[in-house]
Amino acid sequence: MSQQRTDSSASPAFPDLPEATVARLPEYLRALHTLAEQGHDTVSSEGLAAAAGVNSAKLRKDLSHLGSYGTRGVGYDVALLITQIEAVLGLSQHRTVALVGIGNLGHALAGYGGFASRGFSVAALFDAERAQVGERIGDLVVRHIDELAEVVAAEGISIGVITTPVHAAQHVADRLVAAGVTSILNFAPCVLAVPPGVDVRKVDLAVEMQILSFHEHRKALTALPVPRPAPNGRAGEAIGT
Amino acid sequence: MSQQRTDSSASPAFPDLPEATVARLPEYLRALHTLAEQGHDTVSSEGLAAAAGVNSAKLRKDLSHLGSYGTRGVGYDVALLITQIEAVLGLSQHRTVALVGIGNLGHALAGYGGFASRGFSVAALFDAERAQVGERIGDLVVRHIDELAEVVAAEGISIGVITTPVHAAQHVADRLVAAGVTSILNFAPCVLAVPPGVDVRKVDLAVEMQILSFHEHRKALTALPVPRPAPNGRAGEAIGT
Repeated sequence: MSQQRTDSSASPAFPDLPEATVARLPEYLRALHTLAEQGHDTVSSEGLAAAAGVNSAKLRKDLSHLGSYGTRGVGYDVALLITQIEAVLGLSQHRTVALVGIGNLGHALAGYGGFASRGFSVAALFDAERAQVGERIGDLVVRHIDELAEVVAAEGISIGVITTPVHAAQHVADRLVAAGVTSILNFAPCVLAVPPGVDVRKVDLAVEMQILSFHEHRKALTALPVPRPAPNGRAGEAIGT
Repeated sequence: MSQQRTDSSASPAFPDLPEATVARLPEYLRALHTLAEQGHDTVSSEGLAAAAGVNSAKLRKDLSHLGSYGTRGVGYDVALLITQIEAVLGLSQHRTVALVGIGNLGHALAGYGGFASRGFSVAALFDAERAQVGERIGDLVVRHIDELAEVVAAEGISIGVITTPVHAAQHVADRLVAAGVTSILNFAPCVLAVPPGVDVRKVDLAVEMQILSFHEHRKALTALPVPRPAPNGRAGEAIGT
């Protein structure tokens, strides 16, 4: 979820997109890549909307912001739309990431393969605990937080990921910003204060659970009949994890 | 982010809230708890908005959906607003959670203390790999996925968290739904198909990174001057992780 949006006037060269549209573009992109792999050259708005899990009116409106309207009776050109979305998201430029706070979640993210496949590489890991410093995770060695500014400059890091406890998060954010980082993904459950021009996004797992709790509560009170599918007979199938 | 919203007509006993409002209520709640701990009895809309990281007009509109308008010149009653938000989110009822897929991320979530403090308890861990089954994490032992239906019924589990790879996620979702789970938090980067009455929320770390990439790209193209604060002189402070 977005913590805040930096105000800026739209550049003539750059569309001023609603934040909610920006948040859906990566979903469209993933669905388009899957369609391309399956050999589709074009896709209807309904087909793409279903693959991305949104409604088609919303999808058409989102894509109209990019100047993409599709062709009546044909739909959208898959390859062209991929190019357009990647251009808007700035994905042609490889971006390097620093991860600060190498506890359980930091370990999980350091080993997460999903970043590299989408144009991001974790270039450095930091912790303040001397006991963590020097640990090797994949190709990287955990460094002490005091090396942050030097490494951010040397590696051209623009994105910082904070996986520290709450009490350390603001201080880490201050140090990331001082080092030149201009985007932060914050997993600590707190609001960060940052100067204008720095974007923060927040992922809070307890918030996600509370939103699900709302829906559980709503369903219980409105007594919506919930269809219970019969066991699907695939219970013995290996699912891998 | 929300993958989909179950359509339902509003119950007279239950407010029909916009999804974006629901997503902000947990942020207001956290800010209100902090204010209460600090001894505040009332808070202005501006004060609460700043603590929650949103703008105050949006906050007033969100709270008006709950029938909370505050008192002119006084603001909102902190304790009353906490009660109202907790009631809408259904947080008076303790909810139990099953976690499926005990890789790196599953381990991180199983050990995440933030759930219990907010009314959720992870009651069971599942994996399909025999090598994982039997591992002890905190107070729980990882069970085989074939025990899912039995354990969900016995523990009254209503929320499932999927931390499997993509190829297993839909099958796990089918089994969770068949077992009676009606809310799913999905960390696998794919869209899940579920029957009406089941709510899915998705957390996709690569999507978050792509949204930050958009803002990096926008800032580079619109050449917004980014103030670089001077090092703040706290560089030697211990930050803990």
